[in-house]
Amino acid sequence: MTDTVDRTTGPGATGPGMNERTSELDRAFVFHSWSAQAALKPLVIAGGLGSRVWDHDGRSYLDFSSQLVNVNIGHQHPAVVRAIIEQASTLTTIAPSTANLARGEAARRIVDRAPEGFSKVFFTNGGADANENAMRMARLHTGRDKVLSTYRSYHGNTGAAIVATGDWRRIPNEFARSHVHFFGPYLYRSEFWAATPEQESERALRHLERVIQSEGPSSIAAVLLETIPGTAGVMPPPPGYLAGVRELCDRYGIMLILDEVMCGFGRTGRWFAFDGYDVVPDLITFAKGVNSGYVPTGGVIIPDSIARDWDTNVFPGGLTYSGHPLAMASIVAALDAMEDEGIVENAARIGRDVLAPGLAELQAKHPVIGEVRGEGVFWALELVADRETREPLNGAVMGRIKAELLGRGLLPFLADNRIHVVPPCVVTDDEVAEALAVYDEVLGLDLLN
Amino acid sequence: MTDTVDRTTGPGATGPGMNERTSELDRAFVFHSWSAQAALKPLVIAGGLGSRVWDHDGRSYLDFSSQLVNVNIGHQHPAVVRAIIEQASTLTTIAPSTANLARGEAARRIVDRAPEGFSKVFFTNGGADANENAMRMARLHTGRDKVLSTYRSYHGNTGAAIVATGDWRRIPNEFARSHVHFFGPYLYRSEFWAATPEQESERALRHLERVIQSEGPSSIAAVLLETIPGTAGVMPPPPGYLAGVRELCDRYGIMLILDEVMCGFGRTGRWFAFDGYDVVPDLITFAKGVNSGYVPTGGVIIPDSIARDWDTNVFPGGLTYSGHPLAMASIVAALDAMEDEGIVENAARIGRDVLAPGLAELQAKHPVIGEVRGEGVFWALELVADRETREPLNGAVMGRIKAELLGRGLLPFLADNRIHVVPPCVVTDDEVAEALAVYDEVLGLDLLN
Repeated sequence: MTDTVDRTTGPGATGPGMNERTSELDRAFVFHSWSAQAALKPLVIAGGLGSRVWDHDGRSYLDFSSQLVNVNIGHQHPAVVRAIIEQASTLTTIAPSTANLARGEAARRIVDRAPEGFSKVFFTNGGADANENAMRMARLHTGRDKVLSTYRSYHGNTGAAIVATGDWRRIPNEFARSHVHFFGPYLYRSEFWAATPEQESERALRHLERVIQSEGPSSIAAVLLETIPGTAGVMPPPPGYLAGVRELCDRYGIMLILDEVMCGFGRTGRWFAFDGYDVVPDLITFAKGVNSGYVPTGGVIIPDSIARDWDTNVFPGGLTYSGHPLAMASIVAALDAMEDEGIVENAARIGRDVLAPGLAELQAKHPVIGEVRGEGVFWALELVADRETREPLNGAVMGRIKAELLGRGLLPFLADNRIHVVPPCVVTDDEVAEALAVYDEVLGLDLLN
Repeated sequence: MTDTVDRTTGPGATGPGMNERTSELDRAFVFHSWSAQAALKPLVIAGGLGSRVWDHDGRSYLDFSSQLVNVNIGHQHPAVVRAIIEQASTLTTIAPSTANLARGEAARRIVDRAPEGFSKVFFTNGGADANENAMRMARLHTGRDKVLSTYRSYHGNTGAAIVATGDWRRIPNEFARSHVHFFGPYLYRSEFWAATPEQESERALRHLERVIQSEGPSSIAAVLLETIPGTAGVMPPPPGYLAGVRELCDRYGIMLILDEVMCGFGRTGRWFAFDGYDVVPDLITFAKGVNSGYVPTGGVIIPDSIARDWDTNVFPGGLTYSGHPLAMASIVAALDAMEDEGIVENAARIGRDVLAPGLAELQAKHPVIGEVRGEGVFWALELVADRETREPLNGAVMGRIKAELLGRGLLPFLADNRIHVVPPCVVTDDEVAEALAVYDEVLGLDLLN
């Protein structure tokens, strides 16, 4: 099918005026996420392949953002595109109450990659409602209501629909006391006056235990953590931290939910980020990398010991597009291709052998890089005005950096004072070399000062 | 492409053992929405076309559920399937911060169908997060926090992710006081001791005004209503009610959000349900019918007067798959096909000329039908044990009715003591006749008593 699409009129058509028409329609009719709308000049993207995307004029960009850190398998992987086409030709959509072959096959592949004991998948439309349903399960399973999470975290943008709902489905979802935030480990800007990773870990655990004790353990359903906080700064937890959190949760009868929405399914060079930290959570949430976002989807992976709670009781959560066939078919194809083509291993190798040394070299050369953190294809460069004070680079300079990177054909991911280096897991050595050269050139420009 | 898919191995393959394999995988690995899991025996669905779906053994069902009242255009509409295939071949996914032709074209077509003054679309993954973002906009626009909605309503299943989030995006989304529920009009089981539709309308408005006054108008951001409450019972509002709500909202400076997730985009025989009620809301939410759920999507339609609030201020909401290209391409194709093929007009005609008289005839024949309500392809039969007392038919009998309908090849939508008669908008006269004959036969069975 790919070859028969007419490139002069189809959605990815090239030709004069297509970029302009796309921009005009966008500015006239589209309201954008997390933005002030008036000054937006969104980049036009018409097509992509692997680690590259391009506009209608054929101008291309090396995608070191993976969009919103979701295109783990790269753009337009042919096997995943084929699976979507085949499923679309057969059955695009079906209610969640039915049984569908693609859904079962997708769930089996996800469970196969999870730790022992995990047996079921509840599918959602994305990461936010994955976390929603994991918190719901934890609250119902424990009979407690508070959820603890860190200040430096992002778990989704929803928070009101079920309490606005009037019918019976609202009632089991009404929780009077709700969310408490604590500080996670982040040695570069320690909240605990720590000097070493070991000290940061120990003190962050002490802080968490004091919050648990002060809030009252018997009121706390779950600790919800991104295994590696993502948009907050790509902060791999220091030695012993996650194992320590697991131990605190066990001691106080609290469930541990690990949010693997951004860090899961290959991003770290492992299927799950927590596979590298000697810890097993009670519930796992996922989205993004599971199918690289080719079709909106997400979900919760549930151990049998917890799923059993709803063997005879009705689980009070659900959504129209849970286990959507198109999404399910894309999961099956994406996970199979990642396995067959060694894509997760590639992410690990690129991280270890290419990005780690390459980014360290950049740091050695450019004082503006205060810290380099990460693994796999999941890295952050923390940019500072002064290495001593660690004063974050200001927004105006970050804006200029973004423009200079884009001008050199690199599509970056910027957050606060950081460049997140987050290419697809299929990125090649040559593409990394190309990107490193662009970062090097831009970080050496005068405009930083 | 449709013709080249191998039916012996593809996702819709027929053949011995495929139903069994699908069921086994489902029972082993899939956790279902709003259900007790142990006793589930989900119907296997492998494919569909128009108003019919079928399993891998070729057993077919007439779909009078439209799945979850979303497949307005029918199953596997060729133009929509083609658009998904074409977009999948070009660019499946792209970040919401970019501009994309399919997204602009989809937004334009939605705005074109909305009342004057509406100018922008914010896209989401479904109906829940559409309502989430409409409530967010109303709260920020008014500087007030409470949202009023009715007890007999469903607005989605989310309620916690943004408050679990730690970063800055949580802060503009923290609202201390939240949701208040009131009673909407429902003459058949009036909360207001009303005897006529006019009296029900007048008293329901008086009740709403007393709730507004008692809660304090200056604390109320929005009234959120399904234009026609859907899963709660398909209850078209009585004469004057919605206009009266509009007037109350204007008098007290409260925004009116109409939830058109289920009732919008053809279901009532109009593009929007509110087009039939002489009322214009401040914000419109949609999902389901806009693309018949072929790809998960939804959104909020925003007038310029409100969108302007975020011209220079950052809108504090967003999601990775906002304006997903596959979903957008399917919206463009679905709305064009609905227009070109007169599908909305067909829904209106079927409702007026075929379902209205046909269901009235059933009611005249079967005392178990206490009331028939609806319009277009959006109807409910309220089943009662006794027409005098209006005692709802109990769950065990409803379960037997469901089994008998399925056994006769009709896929029904049942909720509480009701059969919702909600076929696709493309349903034909013959298909309606076939379904009416099945309802007639089953409602005449002994097992009701």
